[in-house]
Amino acid sequence: MSELTIWTYDWVPQGPRGFVRDLRLRWACEEAGLPYTVRTVPFDDRQADHFARQPFGQIPFLTDGAVEIFESGAALLYLARKSETLAPREPVGEAQTLQWTIAALNSIEMVSVPWWFLGVCGDPENKLTGWLRQRLDHMETILGGREWLAAGRFTVADLLMADALRVPAVRAFGDRPASEAYIVRVTDRPAFRKAKADQIAHFAAADTARAETAPA
Amino acid sequence: MSELTIWTYDWVPQGPRGFVRDLRLRWACEEAGLPYTVRTVPFDDRQADHFARQPFGQIPFLTDGAVEIFESGAALLYLARKSETLAPREPVGEAQTLQWTIAALNSIEMVSVPWWFLGVCGDPENKLTGWLRQRLDHMETILGGREWLAAGRFTVADLLMADALRVPAVRAFGDRPASEAYIVRVTDRPAFRKAKADQIAHFAAADTARAETAPA
Repeated sequence: MSELTIWTYDWVPQGPRGFVRDLRLRWACEEAGLPYTVRTVPFDDRQADHFARQPFGQIPFLTDGAVEIFESGAALLYLARKSETLAPREPVGEAQTLQWTIAALNSIEMVSVPWWFLGVCGDPENKLTGWLRQRLDHMETILGGREWLAAGRFTVADLLMADALRVPAVRAFGDRPASEAYIVRVTDRPAFRKAKADQIAHFAAADTARAETAPA
Repeated sequence: MSELTIWTYDWVPQGPRGFVRDLRLRWACEEAGLPYTVRTVPFDDRQADHFARQPFGQIPFLTDGAVEIFESGAALLYLARKSETLAPREPVGEAQTLQWTIAALNSIEMVSVPWWFLGVCGDPENKLTGWLRQRLDHMETILGGREWLAAGRFTVADLLMADALRVPAVRAFGDRPASEAYIVRVTDRPAFRKAKADQIAHFAAADTARAETAPA
C-alpha cells in the first residue's frame, strides 16, 4: 500500500485548470507507475494547518509516510529518487537531469513567471520581455539539437521544462519551432494526458459539489 | 586528489564582487572540507566552449571527473550528496533540506531577482514589490520560530536562502529582525567568510593582471 499523497486545492477558478501544479506530481507518479492519492486543502480560506505544511500558502505538497515536502520542484526530485523512469542512476545522466530540472525553475520560470505576472497586471510589454526572449532563444538553440534535455531520454527535467514552456503566454511568445515540437512531444505522453484530464475532472467535480450546496 | 573544479569568470566589475555565484560553491566546499580548484572563462568575450557547458552563458558550473553540472542550485544539491555536513541522510531531514533549497530558488529568488532587476532598470517601486513583501513576510514568520530551515541544523538550504536574502536591496527591504539575525548567523560562518574573501581576492588579482597588460 502506497502512502504517497498529493495535496492540492479543493477548487480553483476555470482559468488555471490544467495548469495547477499538482499536475506535475500526478504526471510524475503516472510516468513512474507510483500509486498515489489526492487530498485537498481549501482554496478560499487557507488555514493554519495549510501554512504549517506550505509556509507560502500554496500547493502542491506531497506526503509519504513521515516525509512531508513542498515546492513542486523539490517533490519531483524526491519522486525521481524512487524511480529510474524519472531520472537515470548513472552519475553523468543524473547530474544532467538535476541541472536541467533546476534550469527549468531558475533560468526559465524565474523570468517567465514574473513576466507573465506583469502581463496579468496589465503590462504585457514590460522590462522583463527582453530577458525572457533571450532565455527562450537559448532554449530554442538547445532544443534544436536534441530530443530530450538530459541523458538522451525522457526525465523529470523534461516534465518540468515542458510544463514551464507550455504556459499559453510563454508558448505564444515568438516563433520557436524546436521548442514547440518539444512541448508537443512531451505533452503527448499518456502520463501527461491522464494527469491533466484527472486534474480537470477533480476541479469539475468541485463545481458540482459547490452548486449542490449553494443557497437555493 | 580531488577533481572538483569550480568555474567562474576571469574578472567582473567591482559591483557584484562578493555576490558572484561561484561563492555558493566555494562556500559549500569549504563547509564540507571538499578540496577544489577554481578555473575561469572570459567575462568579456563568451565563447562557444562556455555556452557548451552553460547554455545561458552564465557561471558558475562545476566539473567533477566526467560529471559536468551548471546552475548553482543543482551544483549545491550535487555537492550535498557528497557530504553530510551539507544535508542529513535521514529521509525526513533530507526532504526538508531539498524543499527549502528549492524554496530559496523558486519562492524567494523567483520574485527577488526580477524585482531587483526592475529596480536596476530604474523602477524600484514596481509591480513585483507587493509580491516580494509577502514572500519576505512569510520568511520572517518562519525564521522567527527556528534557527535553521531544515532538520534543526545548518544545511545547504541555509547557505542558499541566506545568500538570496543577503542581496543588499533585498536585505534593506523592510525591517525583519528574525531574517536579519538569520543572515548574520549564517554569514558569520568561517566557511562563508573564507569563500567571500577568496572570491574578492580572485577578482582583485584580475584587476592587477589587467592593469599590467593594458596598453601604456
